[in-house]
Amino acid sequence: MKLLSSIDSPEQLRQLKPEQLPEVCQEIREFIITNLSHNPGHFGSSMGAVDLIVALHYVFNTPRDRIVWDVGHQAYAHKILTGRRDKFPRQRTKGGISGFPTPLESEYDTFICGHAGNSISAALGMAIADLNTPGEENRRTIAVIGDASISGGLAFEGLNNASNNPNNLLIILNDNDMSIGKNVGALHKSLSNLTTSAGYNRLRFRVYRLFRKLGLINDHRKGLLLRFSNSLKSLISSRQNIFEGMNIRYFGPFDGNDVTKIVKVLNDIKDMKGPRILHLSTVKGKGYEPAEKNPSEWHAPGNFDPATGEKIKSGSKQPLWQEVFGEKLVALADMNPDIVGITAAMLSGTSVDKMMAKYPARTFDVGISEGHAVTFAGGLASAGKKPYVAIYSSFLQRGFDNIIHDVAIQGLPVVFCIDRAGLVGEDGVTHHGLFDLSYLRMIPGLTVAAPLDAETLMSLMDFSTGYPHPLAIRYPRGKAYFSGKKVDKNDIVCGKGRIVLKNEGARIAILSLGAIGKNALKAAETLGKVGIPVDVYDMIWLKPLDEDLLKEISSKYDAVITLEDGTLEGGLGSAVTDWIVNNNIKLRVQKLGVPDRWVGHATVAQLHEECGIDPEGIIKVVKDIESSDTEKHL
Amino acid sequence: MKLLSSIDSPEQLRQLKPEQLPEVCQEIREFIITNLSHNPGHFGSSMGAVDLIVALHYVFNTPRDRIVWDVGHQAYAHKILTGRRDKFPRQRTKGGISGFPTPLESEYDTFICGHAGNSISAALGMAIADLNTPGEENRRTIAVIGDASISGGLAFEGLNNASNNPNNLLIILNDNDMSIGKNVGALHKSLSNLTTSAGYNRLRFRVYRLFRKLGLINDHRKGLLLRFSNSLKSLISSRQNIFEGMNIRYFGPFDGNDVTKIVKVLNDIKDMKGPRILHLSTVKGKGYEPAEKNPSEWHAPGNFDPATGEKIKSGSKQPLWQEVFGEKLVALADMNPDIVGITAAMLSGTSVDKMMAKYPARTFDVGISEGHAVTFAGGLASAGKKPYVAIYSSFLQRGFDNIIHDVAIQGLPVVFCIDRAGLVGEDGVTHHGLFDLSYLRMIPGLTVAAPLDAETLMSLMDFSTGYPHPLAIRYPRGKAYFSGKKVDKNDIVCGKGRIVLKNEGARIAILSLGAIGKNALKAAETLGKVGIPVDVYDMIWLKPLDEDLLKEISSKYDAVITLEDGTLEGGLGSAVTDWIVNNNIKLRVQKLGVPDRWVGHATVAQLHEECGIDPEGIIKVVKDIESSDTEKHL
Repeated sequence: MKLLSSIDSPEQLRQLKPEQLPEVCQEIREFIITNLSHNPGHFGSSMGAVDLIVALHYVFNTPRDRIVWDVGHQAYAHKILTGRRDKFPRQRTKGGISGFPTPLESEYDTFICGHAGNSISAALGMAIADLNTPGEENRRTIAVIGDASISGGLAFEGLNNASNNPNNLLIILNDNDMSIGKNVGALHKSLSNLTTSAGYNRLRFRVYRLFRKLGLINDHRKGLLLRFSNSLKSLISSRQNIFEGMNIRYFGPFDGNDVTKIVKVLNDIKDMKGPRILHLSTVKGKGYEPAEKNPSEWHAPGNFDPATGEKIKSGSKQPLWQEVFGEKLVALADMNPDIVGITAAMLSGTSVDKMMAKYPARTFDVGISEGHAVTFAGGLASAGKKPYVAIYSSFLQRGFDNIIHDVAIQGLPVVFCIDRAGLVGEDGVTHHGLFDLSYLRMIPGLTVAAPLDAETLMSLMDFSTGYPHPLAIRYPRGKAYFSGKKVDKNDIVCGKGRIVLKNEGARIAILSLGAIGKNALKAAETLGKVGIPVDVYDMIWLKPLDEDLLKEISSKYDAVITLEDGTLEGGLGSAVTDWIVNNNIKLRVQKLGVPDRWVGHATVAQLHEECGIDPEGIIKVVKDIESSDTEKHL
Repeated sequence: MKLLSSIDSPEQLRQLKPEQLPEVCQEIREFIITNLSHNPGHFGSSMGAVDLIVALHYVFNTPRDRIVWDVGHQAYAHKILTGRRDKFPRQRTKGGISGFPTPLESEYDTFICGHAGNSISAALGMAIADLNTPGEENRRTIAVIGDASISGGLAFEGLNNASNNPNNLLIILNDNDMSIGKNVGALHKSLSNLTTSAGYNRLRFRVYRLFRKLGLINDHRKGLLLRFSNSLKSLISSRQNIFEGMNIRYFGPFDGNDVTKIVKVLNDIKDMKGPRILHLSTVKGKGYEPAEKNPSEWHAPGNFDPATGEKIKSGSKQPLWQEVFGEKLVALADMNPDIVGITAAMLSGTSVDKMMAKYPARTFDVGISEGHAVTFAGGLASAGKKPYVAIYSSFLQRGFDNIIHDVAIQGLPVVFCIDRAGLVGEDGVTHHGLFDLSYLRMIPGLTVAAPLDAETLMSLMDFSTGYPHPLAIRYPRGKAYFSGKKVDKNDIVCGKGRIVLKNEGARIAILSLGAIGKNALKAAETLGKVGIPVDVYDMIWLKPLDEDLLKEISSKYDAVITLEDGTLEGGLGSAVTDWIVNNNIKLRVQKLGVPDRWVGHATVAQLHEECGIDPEGIIKVVKDIESSDTEKHL
C-alpha cells in the first residue's frame, strides 16, 4: 500500500497526480479483498465502485462538496479514503464502524442510506438549500445511485422533481448490472462510444441538416441541440431516454471503471448549471476475477480465500427461517394453483427464488418497489388469486399505506410474509425490523401472527391458504429454531395462543410472541434449576389477541412478563396492557422488548443483550419481580 | 333526461346507437350540474371525464371487463351509469353512496381508489391474474389514471412493472390540465393531429428512407416501426416519451371529450395484446362554461346557482385550521429566512399557497409524491434549512418510511404539519386521518403535539422554529376553534400538558389530545350543570408524554378518561395505559377514540357521535363511571 497508507483524507488524495490514481484504485481493491475475506461484507458492488469513488474525491472538494450515497454498502472505498481505513477491519461489528455511510459517523457521510432510492430527493434538498444560502451557492452536491435503486418510486419522484426548481444537482447513475439496458436493442452496446464515432457524427449531421431544411430546428434554438442529440441516440437505438423526458441533461454511458476517464468527464461537467445525470457502466466485482465471473454469488460472499476465491463455508447446515418459508411456499403452490409469490428485489434474500425456479409464471420480483408489490398483490387478490408477499420488515414500511388502502380496507386475502423482523444484527439501524408489530396492529381487520419455531411457521403457512382475510406472518433473520414439537395444522386456531412450558408452582408467566420466545424458554429452564418456577406462553397471534388466555393467565399469576422482538411502543406489551386496563384487571406487567431509541449494529445476540431480551436479561427481570414480591410478603 | 332516465345499467347503454352517445353525455352533465349545485362534490374533473366514461361502458363489457379508477372522484358519470343514479343525490352523506368508487358498494367498482396512483399496480394484478386463470384470459382490464396521479412514485413503479410479465392491460391517461405537457416545446400542441397530417407523414418517410439507407432500420425489423414513429414524434417535439422508454405501446394524445372518437379508438385498440397506454386530453369542467373558464376554482366549488354559476357562500367567516397554520407559517417565514414550506399537491388544501404567494422560491409543491416530500425535507434540513412539510394525515402514511429513515434516524429538525388529522367527514374511509398518532408515537426521537385551539396551534408553530429535533403537529379539517385564551409562546414547554377546566370536587378527569378536547369541555360544562364535576386536561403532547402531570392526576382522581380523534390502538389512550402499567399504578382508565374498525362517510359531527367521542358520548361514559362507583360505595 505504497500510496494508500499515506492517504488519511481526501485532501491527501487530491495531492496526487492523475496518473497515480489507477495505482490507488488497485491498492484499495487489494485492501478490500484482504479485509472482506475474513470480515464479510458487500463485496461485488464495492469493488465495482472503487474507481468512481476515487474520481469523486479527487475532483470534488469533499466534505464541503457533498456526496450522497444510495444504499451505501457499495461505498467501502469512500470509508477507506475518508479517515476510516484503520477502522475498516472492524466494520459491522459491535463498537466498530457501520457498514453503511451515516452522518452520525463522519462529516463525509452526508445522509443516511440504508433504504434504496432516497439519494436524489435528499441531494436535491441539499442542492436547493445551498443555492438559496448566501455563501454556499457554489457548493456542489452529487447523488450516486445504482441501477436497481433508480427503478423505485422514490427515486422517480426525486427525478421528476429535479428540474422543477433551480439547482445544480449532479446525479451519477452507477449502472453495474446493466438492468436498465436490458431491453435495449443491439445498437445499445455501441452507444458508449457513439458520440465520438465518425459514423455517428456523420449521421447526426445529415439528420440535423434535414431537420433544419424542414424548419424543425434552427440556430436560434441552439439549446435544443444537446437534447436533439440525445433524442437521436434513443431514436437509433429504438429506445427512449427517460431522463431527457424529465428535462435532465444526460451524459453517457461511460466506462465507470476507468478512473482517468471519469476524472476527465467529472471535470468537464462539474460546474455546469442545472440538474445533470452521468451514466457510468461499472462491473460488479471489478478487479477480482472470481467475482467478475459470478457477480451475483459475490454480492456478499461471506468468508473466502483471497488467493483462490474459494469460499469458506460454515459447518452448520441448519436451515434459515427464510428457507423454511420458501420451501413451504413451494409446497403450498404445488397444491393450490391460485397461489402467487411476490417480492421486491429480495428474491434470494426471502427464498422466493425457490418458487421462481419452479413456477416462474406465478412468481413476481417487482424490483425495489415495495409499494407496488403490495398494491399489485391487492389487484391479484381481487381477481381471485392468493398472493404471498415476502418483504423484509424494515422495507415493508414503504408499503404501509398500500397495506392500509389497497389491501386492508377491502379485506383482501393477501398474506404478508415479513422476513428480517426484529433485530437483524450487522446491517444496523436502518435494517432492523422493529416497527412491524406496531404498525400492523393498528390496521383494522388485519390479522398478525409470529411463529415461535419453524414447525409453527409451517403450520401458519398451512393455515394461511384458506384464510379469507389479510394476514401477516413475521419471522426473523437467521437460523430457524426447530423445537421438535410437531404442530398440526388443526392446532393453529386464529387468535389462540398456547402454553409451551409449565413449571409446578409458577407465580410468574412469560407471554412471548414469535421466535424470541426461545430466549424465554431458555430463561425459564435456567430459573427452574435454581428453584424459581416460571411458565411460558407462546401467544402466536398479536391480533386478534387471545383474550380468553389472558383472562386465564391474569387469574393464575402474580405477574406477567411480555416479550417481543420489536419496539415497546404499540406491540404485544402495549396490546396486553391495553387489555388489562380496558378490563380493569389488577395484574403486574413487565414489558420486555426493544426500547424507544435507535439501536445500532452488532451481532443479533449482542443486540438482544443490549435490549435486555436475551435469556440473562429475562432472568434478571424475573428475579427482580421475585425479590420485590418477597419484600412485600415480609 | 330522455335517454338517461332509462339507463339503469351499462347493458342498457350498450343498446344505444353510437350517434346517441353525445346526447347521453349531455344529459349526464346536466344531471351532475343540477345535483352538485346543492350537494357539493368534485365538479371539474367529473365533468371532464363524462365522455370517456360513456365510451368505456359502451365499448367494454362491464362489469366483466374491469375498469380501475384512480382517485375516483372524477367517476361520477360511472356511478350514474351503473345503477346508482337514484342514489346520486345523496352521495357523500350518512347512509348515502360514497364519493369514491368502492367494491363494497358495487360490482362495477373493482378497487378502492382514494389515494392517488394505485390504479396501474392494482389493474396489472388483475390483468395478470386473468391471463393465468382458465376461462378468464379474454377478460379486459382498464386502468384510468389522471395526469397528476401518474407523476407519483407508485404509478411509476406500476408502469415500470407493466411490461415485465405478459398482460394485456390498457392504461388510459386522462390528462385534464396538461401538466404532463407543460415543459414541452411549441410543437407539442400539434402532436395530437400529427399522425394524420400530411406534413408529418412526408417527414416520417424521408427520415425513414434515410435510416434505411444507413442500415439503421430495415423491413425485417418491422416491429420497430411503431416505436420508430413515436421516437420521431418526441424527437421533433424535442421531448422524450417516457412510456415508450418503458416498453409500453403509446397512443395519442386524442381529444378525450369527443365520445365518438374515443369509442372508435377504444374499439381499435381494445383487443391488442400487451400493455398499452392511451393518452386522452380532457377539459376540466367541460360543458359548463364558468368551470371551463376557471378550472381550479371549480375543482370542488361548493354550492352554486346552476343557471349563473354564481357560488353560494356560507355565512361564516370563521377561519379554517389550515388557514391558521398557513398564515402563521408566512409570519414565521417573514422572520426566519431559513424556513421553507413543502407540500405534495395539496397547496391550497393545506394553505401552503399563502407562503407560495409570498415566497415562491422557498415554497415547494412536489406533486403527488409524499415520500419525496419528506426525504427532500430531510435533505433541506441537513443543509441547514428549517422545512415545514404540510401533508394530510392519511396521505402522510405514504411517507412513513421516509419519516423514519430519512428524518428521524438522523434527528433532523423537520416540522410535519399534519392537516386533516382525525375523522374528516364526507370523503370517508380512505381519507380519515386515524393512524398518525399511533404511527408517529413508535418512532424514536420524534416529538408529537396536537393543539386544542387555534391559539395553541400558533404557539406550537412559534415553539417549532427553535426546536432542534423532528416534530409533528397535527390538527383537523374544518373550522378552527378559538378558545379565546391567549397562549404565550413561553407557555409552550415540550412535553408539558395543562389543566383547562377545573371543577370543585371532581373525581373524574378527562385527558384529551388535540382539537377533540372541545368536546370534552362541552361535556364537562353540561355535567357541571347537573352536579357531576369533571376536570379537563389538555395533554398537548403525545410524545414525550407528560409523566409529571400523569403522576399528579393519578393521585388525585378515581378515574380518568382519555380522549383522542384517532384509532384506539397505539395512540394517547395506549400511551397512558402503558405508563400506568409500567409504573404499577392503580387507576381506572376509560379510553375514548376511534374503535378498531373502518369508519365510513358522513359529517364529522355524525362520525364523532358514531364513535362516541361527541359531547353526549363523553357524558354517557362519565355517568357510567359515576354510577358504577356509586354502586361500589353502597
